Amino acid sequence: MNRRLYLTACINSTGYVAESHRLGAGSPLRFADYEHYLAATRIAHAGVFDAVFLSDHPALMTDARQRPLHSFDPIVLFMALAAQVPDIGFELTASSTYNSPYNLARRVATLDTISGGRTIVNIVSSFNPAVAANFGSAPLPPREARYRQAHEFMAVFNALFESWNLRPSPTPDAVWDASGVRPLNHQGEFYSVAGPLNVPVGPQTRPVIGQAGASSDGIDFAAAHGEIIYCSLLSLEAARLFADDVRDRAERRGRSRASVKIIPGLVPVLGRTHREALERHEAVSGTNSEEGLLRRFAKDAGLDYASLDPDAPLSAEMFQSSSDQQRPIGFTKALGDLIRHDRVSARQFVRRLEGGHRMVVGTPDEVADGIVSWWEAGVVDGYNILPPVLPDDLSEFVAEVIPRLQRRGVFPTSYQKGTMRDRFELPLSSVAQAAE
Amino acid sequence: MNRRLYLTACINSTGYVAESHRLGAGSPLRFADYEHYLAATRIAHAGVFDAVFLSDHPALMTDARQRPLHSFDPIVLFMALAAQVPDIGFELTASSTYNSPYNLARRVATLDTISGGRTIVNIVSSFNPAVAANFGSAPLPPREARYRQAHEFMAVFNALFESWNLRPSPTPDAVWDASGVRPLNHQGEFYSVAGPLNVPVGPQTRPVIGQAGASSDGIDFAAAHGEIIYCSLLSLEAARLFADDVRDRAERRGRSRASVKIIPGLVPVLGRTHREALERHEAVSGTNSEEGLLRRFAKDAGLDYASLDPDAPLSAEMFQSSSDQQRPIGFTKALGDLIRHDRVSARQFVRRLEGGHRMVVGTPDEVADGIVSWWEAGVVDGYNILPPVLPDDLSEFVAEVIPRLQRRGVFPTSYQKGTMRDRFELPLSSVAQAAE
Repeated sequence: MNRRLYLTACINSTGYVAESHRLGAGSPLRFADYEHYLAATRIAHAGVFDAVFLSDHPALMTDARQRPLHSFDPIVLFMALAAQVPDIGFELTASSTYNSPYNLARRVATLDTISGGRTIVNIVSSFNPAVAANFGSAPLPPREARYRQAHEFMAVFNALFESWNLRPSPTPDAVWDASGVRPLNHQGEFYSVAGPLNVPVGPQTRPVIGQAGASSDGIDFAAAHGEIIYCSLLSLEAARLFADDVRDRAERRGRSRASVKIIPGLVPVLGRTHREALERHEAVSGTNSEEGLLRRFAKDAGLDYASLDPDAPLSAEMFQSSSDQQRPIGFTKALGDLIRHDRVSARQFVRRLEGGHRMVVGTPDEVADGIVSWWEAGVVDGYNILPPVLPDDLSEFVAEVIPRLQRRGVFPTSYQKGTMRDRFELPLSSVAQAAE
Repeated sequence: MNRRLYLTACINSTGYVAESHRLGAGSPLRFADYEHYLAATRIAHAGVFDAVFLSDHPALMTDARQRPLHSFDPIVLFMALAAQVPDIGFELTASSTYNSPYNLARRVATLDTISGGRTIVNIVSSFNPAVAANFGSAPLPPREARYRQAHEFMAVFNALFESWNLRPSPTPDAVWDASGVRPLNHQGEFYSVAGPLNVPVGPQTRPVIGQAGASSDGIDFAAAHGEIIYCSLLSLEAARLFADDVRDRAERRGRSRASVKIIPGLVPVLGRTHREALERHEAVSGTNSEEGLLRRFAKDAGLDYASLDPDAPLSAEMFQSSSDQQRPIGFTKALGDLIRHDRVSARQFVRRLEGGHRMVVGTPDEVADGIVSWWEAGVVDGYNILPPVLPDDLSEFVAEVIPRLQRRGVFPTSYQKGTMRDRFELPLSSVAQAAE
């Protein structure tokens, strides 16, 4: 296996769809049940997933019709899971706006060292006013300022991880040598941090850095620091343009194209037959019929359902005015991209995405085809699998789709030793990333 | 057993004494070795300790002659340990000056829920300039301002833990009811926090609150919020005055005297004979002889060793000018208290404390006597045991002293079910504490 497919599994709350707490086995309050996350992680481990992923906002979603999507702190939850489940990696999301770099670096270093180098840190600059309201009276800073802060955050974060020259080996003849560490004495616009970090350099030197923002500022940040890029990509052509853009920008910063892994979200919806999968989609979407899907689409797009021809090609202009400012920029952009590149009808459109991410609906073979095709085209490196309902849809994916990917020789059948940095074949040093 | 002795075990780094990394079995770099902390916790669990304790500064101690005392983040390290060791509690130290209340409450709630209510949070306002230098360019705020901030921090912290009316039970018929949570909308001098917390109310409603500051501001904070009070108490009379002071102030705030547990530090130094224990003390202190202990004492006190009569009673005035501003106020005060109340000579003095905390040196029976005597007097509720070298001195304590305490009927022989709040018999609500 020269080039391999990467798969991560999103294990937030009761699943990806808003209705998931009404659809799964067990209690709707599993969003705050540790055993639920442990079970999901063990299922992902059985499926040889590279990592489990948690998106995050430090705020409570109080809409009674939906389950809270974010509850336990990702670092602390992942530390418990890492102590109980071997091999698999842990991709946590953390805000550069609402964490101090020293505290976050130290907490991540602790998780990374104790887990044996299994940490990926998805740095986000936060876009949710409900989060800002938990961290002071100031409104959320403008996106540009948040990204300027995020760049400085990463410079400090990386420097803290590289503030130890020695890699301590816990052998009886090792000595504590304080000359092996050096202060940072960083003084910048947002941060003043003396250092050094008080956790020694860990098994993968520094955690793998994930990135998920899709604005131009976000893509610049990804090009500078991101090693695993989460994104919403709804058409192969849009994916190609996005991947080229990020890799071009990374190359201009002195990084290799291979050091940027493109891992878009993918919602698998499975059925024994294609028809059964479509019905499962109607159920998990909460619309319960194809007509329901089309009505929801018309409402979201600001169109009149009665005058909508579901089989006529859509035009991108329809969606310009419906862009929701609360929604991350990437989702709105992806909607336009899909229409522009693939010329779909409304009936096709509603079967191509769910909750803003690419959906592949069908039999296990059809879903495996949908996964392999973009990867074989060399455009994406893998997917962040978003099971509609947890753990149900993850179990089914592991039982039905993973073996098909393994039989095709694109996905491993067991774990190799090594850190996340080894597994994703990423360079040790952040020097290239830090250079402007 | 009506009234029982409480014991916690401090497991920082390679042990309590600066020289511990040269004295223990294994590597001097165990301060960043997870297996070392796991071993210490398992030993403490075998000894039925109520909890393990970690003091903390988020900064690296770079003195090459000493081991770094603080490395892994306590919350993250404790989550790993809690996932692997049952029953025992986890007392973490966290700074109210350098954590935002929302992030800290969420991380602690995660640890507390996943561990089944085994968390104690020792809130400190931080006194170390090396810590301040990792968190901005401003110097450490004055003590009075730090405590004003700490009081507001605790009001927000408690309110976040009490922002859920419902206690979700993960049963199949449970429902997600958003009316069970309420925002705080706190607007104060230091914090503006909307809430609610995004982790539901946990098994002990809120974590047990520890407190360790010994200035007058610190004692006020303990009286308002502290449930387990760590302190340096070197004479029984000083302990009685301190305990009465804290409990009187707590009572004036509407709290019960029993809701304040006094748990001073205690350094046990054991030998098969009294003479052997004295020699162990000389070794772990790094002075290697009684003369060495006396020379160190003279130096610390700013006295001339040559003119010191080691058998003459000391006077408190000797220490007024030698108070070290870098040292927490409690240590300096305790030194004066010991001399004032017990009229000791220098030769006696050097055998009564090590590193600022009460030491009991002797055979297992003598150490058990020293532990039981203050507790039987009704002055202290237990001790935070500070093993000079880890895990060596903790193993010996568990093997030799714990069975003696159990045979005397003052210490349990096995764990009872329940949270830390149950174990320490503390009230659920923070309402009394919040009242001024």
